[in-house]
Parts: sequence; structure tokens; C-alpha cells
Amino acid sequence: MVQIPKQQPAQQPSAPKAPAKQSARGAVPTSADVARLAGVSRATVSYVLNNTSAVRISEPTRRRVHEAAKELGYVPHAAARSLRAGHTRIVLMPTPEVPAGPLYSGFLNELQWALSRLDYTVVQYGSVGVGGDDAARAWAELRPVAVLAPVGMGPDGIAVLKRSGAKAVITLGPAPVEDAHALLMDHREVGRVAAEHLLARGHRRIGVVMPREEGLDAFAEPRLAGVRATGADAVPLPLAYEEEDAAQVASRISELGLGAVFAYNDEYAMLLMRAVQDAGCAVPGDVAVIGADDLMLGRLLRPRLSTVRIDLPSGRELAELVDRLVRDPAAEPEVRDVMGATLVRREST
Amino acid sequence: MVQIPKQQPAQQPSAPKAPAKQSARGAVPTSADVARLAGVSRATVSYVLNNTSAVRISEPTRRRVHEAAKELGYVPHAAARSLRAGHTRIVLMPTPEVPAGPLYSGFLNELQWALSRLDYTVVQYGSVGVGGDDAARAWAELRPVAVLAPVGMGPDGIAVLKRSGAKAVITLGPAPVEDAHALLMDHREVGRVAAEHLLARGHRRIGVVMPREEGLDAFAEPRLAGVRATGADAVPLPLAYEEEDAAQVASRISELGLGAVFAYNDEYAMLLMRAVQDAGCAVPGDVAVIGADDLMLGRLLRPRLSTVRIDLPSGRELAELVDRLVRDPAAEPEVRDVMGATLVRREST
Repeated sequence: MVQIPKQQPAQQPSAPKAPAKQSARGAVPTSADVARLAGVSRATVSYVLNNTSAVRISEPTRRRVHEAAKELGYVPHAAARSLRAGHTRIVLMPTPEVPAGPLYSGFLNELQWALSRLDYTVVQYGSVGVGGDDAARAWAELRPVAVLAPVGMGPDGIAVLKRSGAKAVITLGPAPVEDAHALLMDHREVGRVAAEHLLARGHRRIGVVMPREEGLDAFAEPRLAGVRATGADAVPLPLAYEEEDAAQVASRISELGLGAVFAYNDEYAMLLMRAVQDAGCAVPGDVAVIGADDLMLGRLLRPRLSTVRIDLPSGRELAELVDRLVRDPAAEPEVRDVMGATLVRREST
Repeated sequence: MVQIPKQQPAQQPSAPKAPAKQSARGAVPTSADVARLAGVSRATVSYVLNNTSAVRISEPTRRRVHEAAKELGYVPHAAARSLRAGHTRIVLMPTPEVPAGPLYSGFLNELQWALSRLDYTVVQYGSVGVGGDDAARAWAELRPVAVLAPVGMGPDGIAVLKRSGAKAVITLGPAPVEDAHALLMDHREVGRVAAEHLLARGHRRIGVVMPREEGLDAFAEPRLAGVRATGADAVPLPLAYEEEDAAQVASRISELGLGAVFAYNDEYAMLLMRAVQDAGCAVPGDVAVIGADDLMLGRLLRPRLSTVRIDLPSGRELAELVDRLVRDPAAEPEVRDVMGATLVRREST
């Protein structure tokens, strides 16, 4: 699915507009310009536009200020507001370094929607190439009120963020980090569930696909560890997401006499199943195959693909957690296990 | 593929650290604290940490300032810097409202990497529920230096952004918008290429899948229009991404005697092909099927799926364009066609 920012049908050319009233400097309009146009003080402009509930301003005055601001195209400077408050309403999280799959993209969308309903703004900050504690320094400049930090952010980075005003720092990963709340996501569970199923089907030697693609070893290594933790004999099978490499791995599976493969996820599973079938072998008759993620494609393959469904907190649950931790920043760091892995047994194993 | 922010293997608990030197106020350290610790003026601190090349500062002084800043955990306030400069190094773009497919996610990643190499920061701003010109007001608060805006942002929103200091506003969509540069992406081309191919294969009546899923009509409608523009008799086929709905559409294709379907994209094509085959019909013998996006799965299906490959500018090309437009903001608005659509003929048509 090609996803381009949302489009609309071709627009009608707009009629020429009357030129907007110029600000005094002819450049970026300021609150002083708005005050002048509305006939009020700068303080009043600030109270009205920042919706300061502590100060009562009459309706007609509010209207005059809003109209003047609109006429001049004045926008309150987030910087000015955040300098006064010390922080913003920004919830910061890193853009994933690897292209996000359908599960994570959907999750992110839900999270942003839920946070915006609680009057936060989610900003995905591109920190490509800037890791851990260096990223913290860059993020702190934006004065976020909350940060969802990947593991790799250590206690130093967390301290920088808190000192810059962040009320809640929440890490996402397999282990907690000092001084931050933690949502534990341990991918060993995925490997364990897949391997337990294959063991129950009588397979003691299990091929484990290890994607060659950049950035995926952070997930593949724990999954392999999870397979090993069951006591199964795990045989790593490096595999690039390409037909030629899949054909070679299918040969290797044959040569090694492997009767079962945990294919890392459903997409690699589909690739490998096709290679195995093209080589004349049957699934599950010659090779049992299990994936992960429970994508739609798994139901459409023949044989239907067994998989591991991964359960994450809903975006809404996570948004409510963020909000609670922002309101109560002195709370003891919380650690909770949020990733569930459940077997979905179909026809391929 | 479940994509969670990058993880590392379980960390060792860290040793207790010596407490950082307190700032004078015991709270967020300021440039005054750094100046005091380094024995320099605040102006010097600012010159050093903002890397102001216009002022020559000796190496030892620079070092003292950096060390003092590090010891205090001082982070220059992006807000303060942007207030002075009037803008930031931020390139702002909306988070896609629909979960991004593999093509767009990869493109975004590449764009961010290329922009960060040019010393920009890409910020994906969650403007869920805030459309067009309202989004502009929210974005302007961050004082971005460049904005990649979806169509839906009209001339008013663009004016707000420019007045707040944006040097380049670039829209992405099927038609140009007054006062902004435009990268034209016209999805009618995708429908046209698919339909031309089916017409060449002798089919005058073409089923056109219209996904029921939220947000996709922005792409599906132009694609349908592109099919119609070839003179083919287009029959819209609303389809949800679910097996049951696909089975119903497969029946409908039979009843209508449709011999060819443009299935919107490869994922819907795979779903529909399976439903058609499960109903006992042959692809392409009874129904020719073509998708779009040229995903890997198309090569793995049997018959292999014909598709339309969509060519977009590389992230690197787009980054260089953004940089050029930021450096030369007075340039005439540029309009360029950046989306190519190419037939990839396989076995399913």
C-alpha cells in the first residue's frame, strides 16, 4: 500500500485575497501587534490566546483578541509559552529506525489519537544516527513533557531529560532502566511460544530464521534466545528477504534434514514456504513452518500459516498511562510487562 | 513484522553515580549557571554552544564551556535559540493518518536520514483530527524552517506558516497550491497504467476494487478515475480487507461476468485472488487480476501477480530539494511531477 500524505481531488484556484494587515515590522507578527490592533494590553492577548483560566476576560474582549490575531496571522510562539511553563505538551518518541511494519504503524496512530484527545501532541523525532544519551540531549531542547524512550537511553540520558523538564520518561524494551518507568517488551517470549509448539509437534531440532536485514537482529536475537530457552536444538538460518536467498536456505533445510522452522515472522515465513514448495517439498509434511505477527497473509496462504500473535497495550491504554505519570511525576518508577505472545495454530505446523 | 523502538540485550544495572553538580536554582540549569562554572560571560556560553561561527573563541575557552555544560547537564533551550533566529532546523511533516505501508515507511526513513545529514531534523507532527489550515496554526508554533504539507493545506495555512518563519513550504498531492512549491503525485496514473494493460489483454469491462478501509479513498478515487480515463467500462467493487467480504466480492465478479479486476494494490489483490481461487475460478483463466506497489508478495503468489510499480523521488533527492528551497526562499514556486507508474507484467493477467 503506497501511503502518501492524504490528498484531495484537484482544487479550484482560489480568488485573489485582500492582503492581510501588515504587522508593524512587516515580518512575523507579534503579540504587541495583536494588542495594538485589538486595543488591549499584551498581557490580555497572552491570557486570551493561552486560555489562562485563572484570569477572567469578557467575551467581547476575547472575541476582539481572537479576530485581531486571525487578521494578522499571529501564532503564539510555542517557544515563548514553553519558556514560561518550563515544558510543553509534547510527548516525544523516536521515529523507528527500521521501516515500521503494519502492527507498529497502527499502534502509533492509535497512540497519537488517544494522546491528542488528552491534549498532548505526539512528536516523532528523527534521531537517525544519534543514539541513546546523545539523542537525549537533542530531545531535551524541545522541552517535552513526556518521553517514550527506546532502550539504549541510559540513566544519563534520562537525567538530562528530567532536568530539562520532562515529567515522565518511559522506556520500551526488554529491561528496566534506572529512574525511568518501564514497559517491558521481551521478544524472547515470541521465540519461546513458537518453539514450545514445535516441540509439542515432535520436533526437537528447529531452524530459526535470522533476517539479514538491517536493524532486525534487535528482535531476532531475543527470539532465538527464547527458542533455546525451551531446550530445543536451535539451528540459526540467516535469510535475506529475497527469493534467491530463500532458495538457498530451502536447500540447506533439506541438507540438514530440518523438520521444523520458526521463520521469524509471517513475511519471512511466506518467502521461505514458497521456496520450500518450489523445491518440491511439502509444508507441513516435510517441513513445518511457523511465523509471527498474525498478519492477514497467513490466513490466505495454503497451507494456512501457524503464527504467534503479539499483544501490545492499546494506544489508548498507553496514552492514559503517560497522562497519569505526567500528572504524578513523583511516583515511584513503574515496571510492567506489556507484551503478550499467543500461539495461533493453523495448517502449516 | 512487529516494529518496536530498537532494543538492546538486557542491561547490567548501573553503579550508583556521584550526584551531578546542582545548578544555582536546584532545578533546570541555565546558561548563567554554565557561565558561572566556566568563568565566562553568558554571551560566550551562547556563542560556544550554538556554534556561532561569526565569533572567534579560543579552544581552551570552548572546552571549559562544554565541560561546564556537561557537568551541569545544561541543554540549550531550542526555544530560546529559535526565538532569536526566528526559526529552527526543523522540517515538519504530518504523521500519515492511515498506517503507512512499507513503501512510505521506507521512503520516510530515507528522507530523515538524508535531511539529518544536511543538519536538519525531521519532526513528524501528530495532527490527527486537525486538518488543513488549523494544522498550519499548530505547526507554526514550532517555527519550522520547512514544511512538507499534505494537500488540504490551503493558501491561508501556507501564509500562516510563512509568516511564522518557514522558508520553504512544499505540498504533496495531485495539484499545486498557491504560494507553495508542489510535488505532484497523481494517483490517476496508477489506474491508467493498470487499465491500459487490461485493455491490451482484450478486457473492456474492468472491476475496480474500492477499499472500504478509512482514509484510502483519497487514493482509490483517483485510481478509479484513471481507469475511466482510458475509456474502459469501470465497475467499482467496494472491498473490506477481510476474507468474508472478499468471498462476497468474488461471487459478485462471477455474477457480473467480469473477466478482469484492478485490485487497488498487491495486498488487496492477494486477498481477492485467494477468494476467487477458493470459489473454484482460475486466475488469469477466468479472472485476470492486477495490483499495485510491486510488493515482494506479488512474486511469491502463484500465479505471480502483475502489478504497477510506483516510482517516487528518493528520500535523498527530496532532502536536497528541501535544502535548496530553504537556502533560496525567494525562488518562484516550483511545480514538478514526481510520481511515476510502470507496468510490471507477470502471470496473473
